[in-house]
Order: sequence, then structure tokens, then C-alpha cells
Amino acid sequence: MTPSSRLVLHDLAAFPNPARVRIALYEKGIFDQVQCVEVDVMNGEHRGEAFRAMNPDASVPCLVLEDGTALSQCTAIIEYLDAHTAAPSLTGINATERGVISMMNRRAEANLLDAVGAYFHHATAGLGPVLEQHQNRDWGLRQREVAVATLSQFNELLATQDWLAGERFSVADITAFAGMCFIGFTDIEVPETLTHLHAWHARVLARESVKAWQESLGQ
Amino acid sequence: MTPSSRLVLHDLAAFPNPARVRIALYEKGIFDQVQCVEVDVMNGEHRGEAFRAMNPDASVPCLVLEDGTALSQCTAIIEYLDAHTAAPSLTGINATERGVISMMNRRAEANLLDAVGAYFHHATAGLGPVLEQHQNRDWGLRQREVAVATLSQFNELLATQDWLAGERFSVADITAFAGMCFIGFTDIEVPETLTHLHAWHARVLARESVKAWQESLGQ
Ligand SMILES: N[C@@H](CCC(=O)N[C@@H](CS)C(=O)NCC(=O)O)C(=O)O
Ligand SMILES: N[C@@H](CCC(=O)N[C@@H](CS)C(=O)NCC(=O)O)C(=O)O
Repeated sequence: MTPSSRLVLHDLAAFPNPARVRIALYEKGIFDQVQCVEVDVMNGEHRGEAFRAMNPDASVPCLVLEDGTALSQCTAIIEYLDAHTAAPSLTGINATERGVISMMNRRAEANLLDAVGAYFHHATAGLGPVLEQHQNRDWGLRQREVAVATLSQFNELLATQDWLAGERFSVADITAFAGMCFIGFTDIEVPETLTHLHAWHARVLARESVKAWQESLGQ
Repeated sequence: MTPSSRLVLHDLAAFPNPARVRIALYEKGIFDQVQCVEVDVMNGEHRGEAFRAMNPDASVPCLVLEDGTALSQCTAIIEYLDAHTAAPSLTGINATERGVISMMNRRAEANLLDAVGAYFHHATAGLGPVLEQHQNRDWGLRQREVAVATLSQFNELLATQDWLAGERFSVADITAFAGMCFIGFTDIEVPETLTHLHAWHARVLARESVKAWQESLGQ
């Protein structure tokens, strides 16, 4: 695509939620159609008035479309990208697949990625005292338990299938992978005994999209 | 459809999340294709081993498909139903619509329905001491604030558009309506000054689908 790119992605490449959208863009082969604008999250730029006017969720990533529509929420952004560029599908090609992928994506988000996030933000130093203004340690610790239990639940599921929603790599795997990335910023250990989960993690890490994202970070 | 119905819905009709799927079924005109099985939530049936084997989220609703696939999470179930029966669309018919509807549905779920739920379960008596085993009052009160702020945010949006995701009724409106129903079980007041929100609420209440759901409850 030309430099006058029509999709503008406001994010911070190394963060777990931005990673979801970036990996999806690489999977769809359209990363170069997007112009990236870095948001200074550590200094709270995303909480300022200008950013909130675009995205009231005050979160990254946020994708701005050609017509000015601003999309927040990775699930919604990837839903858009998947309808924008058909193949390969990340959200499913028939009713049952769509349902199962949506369910597993929500479980991966609520019970792994967001649970780890709640632990990080509420029961550790998180992003530091300026950004963490409403900590609730008990909530964070409880969500840590949810995340740890989810690792075992997913391990069991992955004993009989390659990917979280079945035989096809999907947005659910991207979300869970972001959860694993977030775990890397915490003291949560992924037990060696969860062999199916580790094998799945290795499969995700071997994907071209994930390698491209990691290379873009200089890792 | 014949009595040997192929979709089985495990739920409890009067609860807010079950309402989402039931209203969606009425919108799609396929409520009579579904066989309903009542779950004894008040006595914790959904937390028992048998139910968890079907739905590890231990929540209602849960829709079981003809091939035995069990779908939990209203967003996923409605995603399935919308692909199963095309018109009228609840999740959008082009990429931008799909993205905006998914985003607004997530906001309505996280910031209204689930926020009210967190207040109800954590900072009030909720479903009673047997079911509410992990209350966190501060978390509940904080989520109450999120819900109240979301009412104002939605009111502003609805000043310039009829429905939450734009000019078309969608799953986002269903989710927010369930949030309004849940508010009815709490002491949260919806200020009279939020006139656009009240007008939207009246529009939702006037829909045939919502009237059919209410009539099924004997209301
Ligand atoms: N559910 C949102 C989560 C977005 C989110 O929380 N992003 C983080 C970065 S990984 C963020 O913006 N954090 C800023 C903050 O916590 O203030 C999504 O799917 O986009
Ligand atoms: N996010 C879930 C929420 C389901 C949910 O929480 N349902 C409630 C009934 S409204 C429930 O099962 N409550 C049982 C409990 O809290 O133990 C969905 O979309 O289905």
C-alpha cells in the first residue's frame, strides 16, 4: 500500500493487547497496509482528553478506519480485519466454527489474558503508582487463581486438538498467546507438567506471524 | 420445527444473560426451533460436575448444537445464531459494521452488564451466601461506578443515533438491555436526565422480540 495508508493503528508494539492485533495483521498479510502511531502509555497519553475522544476505553490498540471510525477492543478490531480480508479466516467460516471460536476467544480473554492483567495491575506494582490508581490486591490475587486454573483447563483441551478452538488456528490462539506473553511480565509459573500447553505454545511461536511480530520488536 | 428439536438451550428465562439469547432467538424468528431445559441456578446446579462437563464456565445460558457442541457465552451463542440464520443481522453485514457492533457489544457487556453484575454479586447480598463465596465489596463498588459512568456515556452516544452501534438494532442493544434489566435488581438509579438513554430503552421495550420474551415470563 501507498504511504497515504488508510488504516491507522494507535498502539505500543510490545504490549500484550497490541500484539493481538499486530499478529492478526501479519496472519492476514496486511500489516504493511497499516500506519502505526505509537501511544505513550507509560506517561498516560491514552488517558488524556485527545485520546479518549477517539477511544473512550482509554486503551491500546485502537484502529482508525478510512472513514474515521475508531475501533477499540482487539476482538472487534480482529473481527473487522477478518471481514475486510477474507483468507485465512481467524474467526471461522461457518456457524459452528464462529460460535466455538468466539467462545474460546472470550474464555482466553476473560480467564487468561485479562485475569493475568488484573493480577499484574492490582496485586503487583503494575505500570507504577501514577497509572495504578485503583489497586485491589484481593481481586488481583483471585484473578491470578483464575489464570492458573485456566492454564490447566487449556492444557487438557489441547491434549486432543492442536488449537484452542479445534483444528484451525484462530483468534482464540492469538488471545491466549497474548496471555502467555503477559505471564512473562509476572511471577506466574507455567508448570512443566502442562505438556500439551507447552507444545501448543511452541506451535504458536513457530508461526510466521508471531516471528514477524517478535522480529519487529528486535527480539 | 419438529418436537425432536436439534438445539437445546440450558438456562433460566428470567435471568439477564439468558434473556440475551432468548431475545436474539425471537429476533431471528427461531425461538420455536429450540428446546429449553431449566437449570436450577439458585441451588447451584450449574456449579455441579455434570453441568461443568458440558460448560466449564459454570454459567447460563448454554446452547447445545445438534452435533453435541456446547456453546457458552452469549456473544458466542448469538454469533452462532446469526450465522445459522442470516436475516435480520444482529452482528453486522460488512466489515465496519461487524467491528463497530462487536466493540459496542463488548463495551455494553464489560462496562454495563458485567459491571452491574459485579456490583450485585460482590457488594450486595447477590444470590445469597451459598452462591456468593468470594465477595469483594470494594471491587463491587468500583464496578458500580463503571456502570453508572457507562449509562452517561451511552446516553451521549444515543443523542445522535437510534441504536448503540449506529442505525441498526444489534446484539449490542440486546446486551445493554440485559444490563438495564440487571439494574432493576439493584438500587442503581437511572437518572431522569438521561433522556436519550430512556428513549432508547423505550424503543427496545417496544420490539416484538422483547415483548415476546417478557410475555414468556408472565410479565
Ligand atoms: N480489552 C481490551 C484491552 C486493552 C488493554 O487493556 N490494553 C492495555 C495495553 S496491553 C492498555 O491500554 N493499558 C493501559 C492502562 O492499563 O491504562 C482490548 O481487547 O483491546
Ligand atoms: N459472560 C457470560 C455470563 C453468564 C452468566 O454470568 N450468567 C449468570 C446468569 S445471568 C449465571 O450463570 N450466574 C450463575 C452464578 O453467578 O453462579 C455470558 O455471556 O454468557
